Amino acid sequence: MNSPHQVMLLSEMKPGQFADSFVLLVSKERSITRDGKPYFRAHFRDNSITATAMIWSDTTWFEDCESNWTEGEFYKVRARYDESKYGPQLDIDRIRLANADDEADGFDPGFYFKRSRFSSEEMFQELTEITNTEISDVPLRNLVLDILSAYEEQIKTIAAASKNHHAFTGGFLEHVLSVTKTACYLADKYLAYYQKMQPPLNKSLVVAGAILHDIGKLRELEYKPHGSQYTPAGRLVGHILLGRDLVREHAVKIEGLNPEMLLRLEHLIVAHQNLPEWGSPIAPHTPEALLVHYADDVDAKFHMMATTLENVLPGSQEEFSSRDNALRRSIFVGLKSNE
Amino acid sequence: MNSPHQVMLLSEMKPGQFADSFVLLVSKERSITRDGKPYFRAHFRDNSITATAMIWSDTTWFEDCESNWTEGEFYKVRARYDESKYGPQLDIDRIRLANADDEADGFDPGFYFKRSRFSSEEMFQELTEITNTEISDVPLRNLVLDILSAYEEQIKTIAAASKNHHAFTGGFLEHVLSVTKTACYLADKYLAYYQKMQPPLNKSLVVAGAILHDIGKLRELEYKPHGSQYTPAGRLVGHILLGRDLVREHAVKIEGLNPEMLLRLEHLIVAHQNLPEWGSPIAPHTPEALLVHYADDVDAKFHMMATTLENVLPGSQEEFSSRDNALRRSIFVGLKSNE
Amino acid sequence: MNSPHQVMLLSEMKPGQFADSFVLLVSKERSITRDGKPYFRAHFRDNSITATAMIWSDTTWFEDCESNWTEGEFYKVRARYDESKYGPQLDIDRIRLANADDEADGFDPGFYFKRSRFSSEEMFQELTEITNTEISDVPLRNLVLDILSAYEEQIKTIAAASKNHHAFTGGFLEHVLSVTKTACYLADKYLAYYQKMQPPLNKSLVVAGAILHDIGKLRELEYKPHGSQYTPAGRLVGHILLGRDLVREHAVKIEGLNPEMLLRLEHLIVAHQNLPEWGSPIAPHTPEALLVHYADDVDAKFHMMATTLENVLPGSQEEFSSRDNALRRSIFVGLKSNE
Amino acid sequence: MNSPHQVMLLSEMKPGQFADSFVLLVSKERSITRDGKPYFRAHFRDNSITATAMIWSDTTWFEDCESNWTEGEFYKVRARYDESKYGPQLDIDRIRLANADDEADGFDPGFYFKRSRFSSEEMFQELTEITNTEISDVPLRNLVLDILSAYEEQIKTIAAASKNHHAFTGGFLEHVLSVTKTACYLADKYLAYYQKMQPPLNKSLVVAGAILHDIGKLRELEYKPHGSQYTPAGRLVGHILLGRDLVREHAVKIEGLNPEMLLRLEHLIVAHQNLPEWGSPIAPHTPEALLVHYADDVDAKFHMMATTLENVLPGSQEEFSSRDNALRRSIFVGLKSNE
Amino acid sequence: MNSPHQVMLLSEMKPGQFADSFVLLVSKERSITRDGKPYFRAHFRDNSITATAMIWSDTTWFEDCESNWTEGEFYKVRARYDESKYGPQLDIDRIRLANADDEADGFDPGFYFKRSRFSSEEMFQELTEITNTEISDVPLRNLVLDILSAYEEQIKTIAAASKNHHAFTGGFLEHVLSVTKTACYLADKYLAYYQKMQPPLNKSLVVAGAILHDIGKLRELEYKPHGSQYTPAGRLVGHILLGRDLVREHAVKIEGLNPEMLLRLEHLIVAHQNLPEWGSPIAPHTPEALLVHYADDVDAKFHMMATTLENVLPGSQEEFSSRDNALRRSIFVGLKSNE
Amino acid sequence: MNSPHQVMLLSEMKPGQFADSFVLLVSKERSITRDGKPYFRAHFRDNSITATAMIWSDTTWFEDCESNWTEGEFYKVRARYDESKYGPQLDIDRIRLANADDEADGFDPGFYFKRSRFSSEEMFQELTEITNTEISDVPLRNLVLDILSAYEEQIKTIAAASKNHHAFTGGFLEHVLSVTKTACYLADKYLAYYQKMQPPLNKSLVVAGAILHDIGKLRELEYKPHGSQYTPAGRLVGHILLGRDLVREHAVKIEGLNPEMLLRLEHLIVAHQNLPEWGSPIAPHTPEALLVHYADDVDAKFHMMATTLENVLPGSQEEFSSRDNALRRSIFVGLKSNE
Repeated sequence: MNSPHQVMLLSEMKPGQFADSFVLLVSKERSITRDGKPYFRAHFRDNSITATAMIWSDTTWFEDCESNWTEGEFYKVRARYDESKYGPQLDIDRIRLANADDEADGFDPGFYFKRSRFSSEEMFQELTEITNTEISDVPLRNLVLDILSAYEEQIKTIAAASKNHHAFTGGFLEHVLSVTKTACYLADKYLAYYQKMQPPLNKSLVVAGAILHDIGKLRELEYKPHGSQYTPAGRLVGHILLGRDLVREHAVKIEGLNPEMLLRLEHLIVAHQNLPEWGSPIAPHTPEALLVHYADDVDAKFHMMATTLENVLPGSQEEFSSRDNALRRSIFVGLKSNE
Repeated sequence: MNSPHQVMLLSEMKPGQFADSFVLLVSKERSITRDGKPYFRAHFRDNSITATAMIWSDTTWFEDCESNWTEGEFYKVRARYDESKYGPQLDIDRIRLANADDEADGFDPGFYFKRSRFSSEEMFQELTEITNTEISDVPLRNLVLDILSAYEEQIKTIAAASKNHHAFTGGFLEHVLSVTKTACYLADKYLAYYQKMQPPLNKSLVVAGAILHDIGKLRELEYKPHGSQYTPAGRLVGHILLGRDLVREHAVKIEGLNPEMLLRLEHLIVAHQNLPEWGSPIAPHTPEALLVHYADDVDAKFHMMATTLENVLPGSQEEFSSRDNALRRSIFVGLKSNE
Repeated sequence: MNSPHQVMLLSEMKPGQFADSFVLLVSKERSITRDGKPYFRAHFRDNSITATAMIWSDTTWFEDCESNWTEGEFYKVRARYDESKYGPQLDIDRIRLANADDEADGFDPGFYFKRSRFSSEEMFQELTEITNTEISDVPLRNLVLDILSAYEEQIKTIAAASKNHHAFTGGFLEHVLSVTKTACYLADKYLAYYQKMQPPLNKSLVVAGAILHDIGKLRELEYKPHGSQYTPAGRLVGHILLGRDLVREHAVKIEGLNPEMLLRLEHLIVAHQNLPEWGSPIAPHTPEALLVHYADDVDAKFHMMATTLENVLPGSQEEFSSRDNALRRSIFVGLKSNE
Repeated sequence: MNSPHQVMLLSEMKPGQFADSFVLLVSKERSITRDGKPYFRAHFRDNSITATAMIWSDTTWFEDCESNWTEGEFYKVRARYDESKYGPQLDIDRIRLANADDEADGFDPGFYFKRSRFSSEEMFQELTEITNTEISDVPLRNLVLDILSAYEEQIKTIAAASKNHHAFTGGFLEHVLSVTKTACYLADKYLAYYQKMQPPLNKSLVVAGAILHDIGKLRELEYKPHGSQYTPAGRLVGHILLGRDLVREHAVKIEGLNPEMLLRLEHLIVAHQNLPEWGSPIAPHTPEALLVHYADDVDAKFHMMATTLENVLPGSQEEFSSRDNALRRSIFVGLKSNE
Repeated sequence: MNSPHQVMLLSEMKPGQFADSFVLLVSKERSITRDGKPYFRAHFRDNSITATAMIWSDTTWFEDCESNWTEGEFYKVRARYDESKYGPQLDIDRIRLANADDEADGFDPGFYFKRSRFSSEEMFQELTEITNTEISDVPLRNLVLDILSAYEEQIKTIAAASKNHHAFTGGFLEHVLSVTKTACYLADKYLAYYQKMQPPLNKSLVVAGAILHDIGKLRELEYKPHGSQYTPAGRLVGHILLGRDLVREHAVKIEGLNPEMLLRLEHLIVAHQNLPEWGSPIAPHTPEALLVHYADDVDAKFHMMATTLENVLPGSQEEFSSRDNALRRSIFVGLKSNE
Repeated sequence: MNSPHQVMLLSEMKPGQFADSFVLLVSKERSITRDGKPYFRAHFRDNSITATAMIWSDTTWFEDCESNWTEGEFYKVRARYDESKYGPQLDIDRIRLANADDEADGFDPGFYFKRSRFSSEEMFQELTEITNTEISDVPLRNLVLDILSAYEEQIKTIAAASKNHHAFTGGFLEHVLSVTKTACYLADKYLAYYQKMQPPLNKSLVVAGAILHDIGKLRELEYKPHGSQYTPAGRLVGHILLGRDLVREHAVKIEGLNPEMLLRLEHLIVAHQNLPEWGSPIAPHTPEALLVHYADDVDAKFHMMATTLENVLPGSQEEFSSRDNALRRSIFVGLKSNE
């Protein structure tokens, strides 16, 4: 039915089909067969599925793979697609780097990466402004500004997670900014309500905590546009501890920072996931930590639900989404008329 | 040290002490001894402790107690205070209704009841205005207005709970108004963020749900200024189901109310406590239910924490509160200098 | 080995095989491709497996599918069977409605549907008799009779669940009748044992509760002979709440119904699944609710175990069943001799 | 108010009161003071409270206590009652064994012990008859008869538990007989329903299992009319394992007993508490074990609820019982009119 | 690419490939088709995968399979390998028993079975020596020696589990010896530390308990060199109870064995898995039981982790193992340089 | 019975008794009455109970208490002992510092403090020797030595916990040394067993980890001979994070320390409590972390059990200890003869 060399998406290929396709090299892993020969497992994907090409040492592409193929680059491949017990497979006949001319054939790198729909520049600027206007405690404000400027590039690009929520370029910043705004709202509100608390609710701390609660993600995840991965420290120590480290490292340089304020900020980071089974060794013991926990949690969970509803196909007659989302729950789409 | 007939607070009396005191009759319970004689257990309290007076059938006050003593009224008693294995006891020597003249002796009924620090009138008006301005779906708005006007008096007076949080006169309204404002904030925010959701986030539903999420409390609790109590239906069916009933009863009278909208509102009420072990038989399956759950939960938990910090004694040298609060957790008060 | 147009069961076809088969159209779902063209996913099954036919807009059967194919009807198809990553697939070459003449070729609609082995007529009559003889409280009896007669047809046909237990035509009635008989037995027994309970065990309530405990299934599930499905209200509100609604709707019409009796009946329905994690927001707080819970639970769990043992193949040498049953547990079949 | 030497119940005495009382000696424990002198802690009770008398070596009653006082006997004491941080205390002035003449003063030993309201003789006879008529498998029947006759006296007297349910003389037999009858009912019923199970439901096994499921209680508890206590083996090994031992010991003597039948009976005993956290290391894997679990569980739980409602005081105005019962749950008593 | 009759491993064959292979017959199961004809499902494996050959009654190998094929024997097969929805399949063209001559073609039975790297003879001797030197209580020592000698052959060969840990020939003995050594170490250590315990730590009991803690595995598992399987008693009663039985059976023959010592040993066996959800109906209530629990648990868990790290492929660039191990956890392998 | 001014232990005084006693001032807390007057709550204890003296501003001892009374000092008091709803109370008549002459009256400060039965000097020396001989990795050894020498005094004195286990002076060192020895044993053992692990088990890391696993206790607890207390950082951040901080602070100064080694050591500290609900945000992902977890856990739990058995009174006839110990479990003491 299809001509052999047509250009099509990897995810549209059927078992046994032979076609051209633009694909992203996600990773290549070197390994060794039982009889001691090296080979590579190269993983290519489009925006929805990933297929593996086995590159044996005695085959055409071994040397090219070893020397030249680069993770994160796009390639045009001519290959046979198959499905084995190990999942989707590609048997590569030809391969070359994709280039500008390919765009005439419909190649669009942006198609392969998800990114925030908001400008990282603008989000970062807005976060900086909030820092300047909403954190009245000067040393605390300086601490936040110091961290923001030290990691500006990373903050502007990394994802908030490897999957689950905001798992795309700029997702970290999008999430942090949203959490911070909600935290400002809640701080203003409850500061006005509960005026007899001793000590009073500290809005500077709420805002600083919201901005920094997930800062350990900078060390927990190794950002790649084609998908973030956990670092060894991320898996062995975790972003909560790594984030507290980062804050403490910068805190020593901030003149006049109140030690109790720093302790409260550390506690807020440690406690922001609320329960041991959700990752926090200690539950919130201050009102500021409580507010940041809620501002964070509602943003993450709402994102999961919103994403599910954004991906409902127009014209679908299903009344509920599938359970295949980060909430592991079918979301109600709406009643369908029966006529 | 004290003259015998001095006027003092019940909670200041020591075992064996004999004194005058202004107390509130919380309840009187009729019961029968093993040998078939009736007696009353009468519970009196001030603003912090409750003591029991046993009124046997062959004693002075039995007839007066049976005929005249009224729950919710204040009395001036002259009595001996003691502590037995059944808790604090009062042995009444004299008793009469408190009256206006007693204010000269320091009697102040307001001292015995906790109530919201906000005016119920103003809160109710604000809630009505939010209904009018933020619920654009006309039948849904009419449903909310119908319920608000039908139960205006109750809504203005009842507590949000028998204990735990907002357990005081006007507490229900204070909590609902606060939840509603947060829900408005979150709805506006996420409506702007996630414009491709299908269907879009329905702000009218979020606001209506926030106002009505706890409406079953009107049937779950029997309000008394001296402490709310669960009704039998409250214990056997629960406020979640009772609230959904109330909404459905009014919904049949509302012209043009979309059945799917009503179903979503019912779901929101059913799901607002999020997890089975927290009381919701079904978890949130719509974004509107998710937002109301968070707006509700942060308000309840923050109230618990704020109340704890409001009650820290000035001059206390403790760095943490006791664990004796609704969160069962010591709240951090602050570092104390050691000099 | 097989001639191409032989008639065989769908579940006997091997990948790549082309044959004729009688199949049931379970559902057809309209959807839209990325490039905007409509298509159908049609699901056909025999008594054990389900296969999907993709009907693209530019293929032979699209129009026929769109206009004529009807869920719940039987078809004779000539098709190629295959297994893809999306599961079993059918590529349809010919299709027509099955008809009476096909029975000569071995077509038997009864083969495709599971149904209770008991007569719905007789079961319904028995349930009505129990109502008349065992519920001595007249208004309560009238309430049950009113509901039984109002939904007689549905009660006679629906399944007790979409899967898990009694998931077949008439299964609801089979389960309810069995629960009711056990409940009668337990009520008689414990009424005789515990004569000093205050109030005494109310057999009328136990029996009425047993009959009505699952009545919400009428609204939770949409019955189809080819498999029941949850309604939106079933998923968003649940059969426990829907069943209580139904009872309350009918209760308003029953003269003389004691409000406390109705409250106890509502509680029984709400509590019949015993624990929050099993679906009941409130645990049994009355002896009647306790008895109905056990009568219900033993019947459901015994059905799961019995069905597993009914399906053991004769001649099998396995000492335990597989774990692939509703109890997720291997059931002991028996020791096998080793000679 | 009272004359000093009046006869009254221990539980009616007030701190500081001096009176005569008939009491049961529950236990006396010898211990040693820090400075090496022996003393006794003697525990006396009436039907509701227990008080301790400290008998020091240099006091009047030491020798009499050491030589003569016997656990399980009744005494008339003249003593001062007090409440210390160690609980109720008795300071004994006079003490002697209660005797027949004391009945003129109202002494009634039956008042101090709870026992089954059914005759142990009749219950035992009924259980034997059920064994003979309902267990058609002859060796299995012989096994049960052998055990019943070997432990007839114990079976007629012991309690089913040290507290929780059926914790009184004859309670074990009352519970076992009730479970057995329910098990017969369920076995008959489901045997008729599910005729295609392979193997078929074995009623003999269900009945034998019901009779023997708790037989380990004979070794787990040391029966005393004044309250059963766990044996060391009961605490270190548990009644489930001890019961299986007992059955196996007798099984070796039974001619013709099918080994698979014995294995199924052992499994039934091991699994009858259903879940690890309820005490069964293995869940029911046979239909017979499932039925006995339910017959047992409903009887135990109903007893807890029934006992609670039997103990509601006549004339009480409470709508719910206290939570101080084995279910840790307030049981609904009924609505109270408000006039 | 491959010549058809080459000899290759089953696990190296690709779908559709036809080749010779040496395989182990793991099991053959007789069953019956819907139309009443018998057939066999024969399971063959190499050291990593298992494939099924369906032997229909009207095919070549049926009679040979029925009469001659023997579980646990090796065969040389010429067959076509395929993968169906039922997993890997073999279509057998020729089959014969493997024999000594085949070793020239690389056939090595040892390749197919995992076994302990330690000599069973030496391990058994070491365990006997420990018994003789470390158990000073003579009757207890005799009990252990009696059991060791009665089951010497089984103890030397069986696996410690069907999977999870030490699941290979000799694995039981390897695990028991290791646990016993650790238990000796801990007993010596804590005996020296805590000299005032009453009663003192009993090292004889710790050592005997370590040797016997898992002795029920002899009855729980049916050892086969090609993989152990649970016995019916193993699944219905469990190794904890079966082990205690075995000990008690031997204990009756041991002169002078202290009943309390036996009770403590039984408790130790019953409690050695520590928690109900891990299989122990009762938690450790003696220090000896506590020590054996830890000695056992650390050995099992360390084996799981060590095995995972032994199986990391040399040259792998992965920093963590897969989660596909008995701990369900990725084990850290090490940082990889990035150059 | 007693002369009024006899010297007796606080814990031997009865309510209402007036006597002399040597007591330790545990703490004094300044607070303010409702009417604004200052007062002190002074807590005195002997080796088993604590009593409170209220020192009002208008009473004799206020000024002395405010100016002179010092926490951690011993006093001789003449006081009346009582028990109120606030617990044991002392009404002080006379008070002065205890002094050397009082030893003639039996005063012994050592009686009031628990401390390790081992010499801190010798334990510290032993730990240093283990460091030198068992940690072959030089930079890692230097890191441990650096930490040991920096905190030598604290390490020699602090307790391992505020209660639960090793809660006495020197308890931290006693526990750490014991854990380290067990860890050495396990490391040697498994290093020999599993020689093919990649990477091999690192004994240096196991030993260093054992020594440092609880090092955060130095910052979590504020040591006082009369009872350790949590620091604010201990409650808000926890000893696991604080210990990792301490290690990292010293690690930066150690030349040649391998970054992966440090990461593994950090992970070990983070993971040593194994499960989130036991305090570790991340489970052990390395074999070294696994071993230290077990070495730590068995030592803590054995200590709890041993302490319980050390405290059984000689001559006691109880077969089980009370449940009032850190394991919340009755420990088996032994069978008691019945004659």
